[in-house]
Amino acid sequence: MPLSEFEIIRRFFTRRAPRAVLGVGDDAAIVRARRGRELVLTADMLVAGRHFRADADPERLGHKALAVNLSDIAAMGATPRWATLSIALPRADTRWLASFSRGLVRLARRHKVDLVGGDTTRGPLAICVQVVGDVPAGEALRRDGARVGDDVWVSGTLGDAALALAAVKGQVTIGRRERARAERRLDAPAPRVALGERLRGIARSAIDVSDGLLADLGHICERSGAAAVVEFARVPCSPALRGLLGRPAARVALLAGGDDYELCFTAARMERAAVVQVARRLRTRVTRIGTIIPRRRGAGLVTVLGKNGRPMAFERTGFDHFA
Amino acid sequence: MPLSEFEIIRRFFTRRAPRAVLGVGDDAAIVRARRGRELVLTADMLVAGRHFRADADPERLGHKALAVNLSDIAAMGATPRWATLSIALPRADTRWLASFSRGLVRLARRHKVDLVGGDTTRGPLAICVQVVGDVPAGEALRRDGARVGDDVWVSGTLGDAALALAAVKGQVTIGRRERARAERRLDAPAPRVALGERLRGIARSAIDVSDGLLADLGHICERSGAAAVVEFARVPCSPALRGLLGRPAARVALLAGGDDYELCFTAARMERAAVVQVARRLRTRVTRIGTIIPRRRGAGLVTVLGKNGRPMAFERTGFDHFA
Repeated sequence: MPLSEFEIIRRFFTRRAPRAVLGVGDDAAIVRARRGRELVLTADMLVAGRHFRADADPERLGHKALAVNLSDIAAMGATPRWATLSIALPRADTRWLASFSRGLVRLARRHKVDLVGGDTTRGPLAICVQVVGDVPAGEALRRDGARVGDDVWVSGTLGDAALALAAVKGQVTIGRRERARAERRLDAPAPRVALGERLRGIARSAIDVSDGLLADLGHICERSGAAAVVEFARVPCSPALRGLLGRPAARVALLAGGDDYELCFTAARMERAAVVQVARRLRTRVTRIGTIIPRRRGAGLVTVLGKNGRPMAFERTGFDHFA
Repeated sequence: MPLSEFEIIRRFFTRRAPRAVLGVGDDAAIVRARRGRELVLTADMLVAGRHFRADADPERLGHKALAVNLSDIAAMGATPRWATLSIALPRADTRWLASFSRGLVRLARRHKVDLVGGDTTRGPLAICVQVVGDVPAGEALRRDGARVGDDVWVSGTLGDAALALAAVKGQVTIGRRERARAERRLDAPAPRVALGERLRGIARSAIDVSDGLLADLGHICERSGAAAVVEFARVPCSPALRGLLGRPAARVALLAGGDDYELCFTAARMERAAVVQVARRLRTRVTRIGTIIPRRRGAGLVTVLGKNGRPMAFERTGFDHFA
């Protein structure tokens, strides 16, 4: 007998919600905001065939659907608290659901996020997660806070998700271990929540790298009324990708591949030691890759300098779902 | 030239958000919760071919996508404040988007709800709206508050959405005006936000009728550890549906059709005058249709009594997306 909608919600998506007044099971969830904090709201939709293959590992998919939202919360310097999940499923497949739910719930527990509600329906596979977080009032890391002279930093390494995608498509060949590592970056990214929280009061602006470094740093520049210059040789990448950087496609993967879910942030020069200390405590790599500069008429928002000190040109600057 | 994802967001989904600290355009929106209030979170997904036809009027669709969420907020006795929209679109159709956005934004304005964020992507048409509302702490109308002896009330009339669907499918023939009226109920429901707010402190439990009266009143009974008895003849319906009640399918439409977005609530007998007064002030029809009774082993949660005082039987008690 096929599972009913209510049975699906009960079995796979109803978990203890100790941080909610009322979790799954009513018309809406009830939660209590902490005093002195502002709320931070984000939502992301993942669609089969667009963001993942229909036969993708459901456990990783459950992880990723939440992770991309936690990454947005991290980029605000906020703490994620509650999540809702809306999911359209072609059919009620118990094994798929158990696995998907495991991936999502495990990541939620790790970050002490309660799944408090949502919606389950039949349709082409699509997943929509919303996360509500909080942050001390006035302390959120916004895109519009960068100032001329700020250092530009990025966490972790970039380009691995795009590398994995290229490997899957047979466009590049890399070692088995390197490929598995890159695929983990693509399918099960680790959102930089702790880093975002610790950067409050240190960073001036932040964004998560989901569309690609050039596009996302461009968003900071646009919102902050500034521009940025990045030294190509400083942009951190995995050894596997480093070995391929002779190819134009690999350089595009590094700077415009997207799906990295690292943080790109700016901070005043005097905060260099503080940034490094935060990163060391969290055992997270951070790299200073450039500087915020004044915007110049006719010039691009983000200039990438090659080894010779000359600006490099790129065919594509970021990922656009409608391009 | 096709519109980019950013252009779509800018043109159609970026509106003034006077009730937010920071609206569309960052990694997440920032809002401020009011002191002494709890937050209420809900999310609903509408999928083409399941909840609406792919050629549905986009303006009504924009309205409905928000309305079903406002209805959930209303059923909590809460005030809607902020919404996020995630939408997957097969293509960037400017006219469709303008119309969809108009329907959604107009309803949002009417209820002073700010659209503060979301996500736009390409994929089979699916719409996911989340709404965050608030309510004085401890005063939310929950499903689990009904007590034996409570009156069962319902707002407006039921069954018109199911009637419209039956008319579209050619299963029934009704007059042109009646059909237009029923279709408005189906496509552009009016969420009972003001009624929900005014019922705080009067009603003991509430739910919005989205799956059908029998199923939704059943949810109240289940959560409250009680049962309910409803008099069929009291259940309010439009004259068009009234004329068809000789048919079993029409009776199912009335009690189990779903998509009504009216409120079903329970209140102590001593609150009868208060309920009627609230409804009169809002010019909203409310009807007392039954009573909460003790749960009996082996008996159903909701019993419907016919004119002869005997229980009526129904083939279907509610809508299940996986049935």
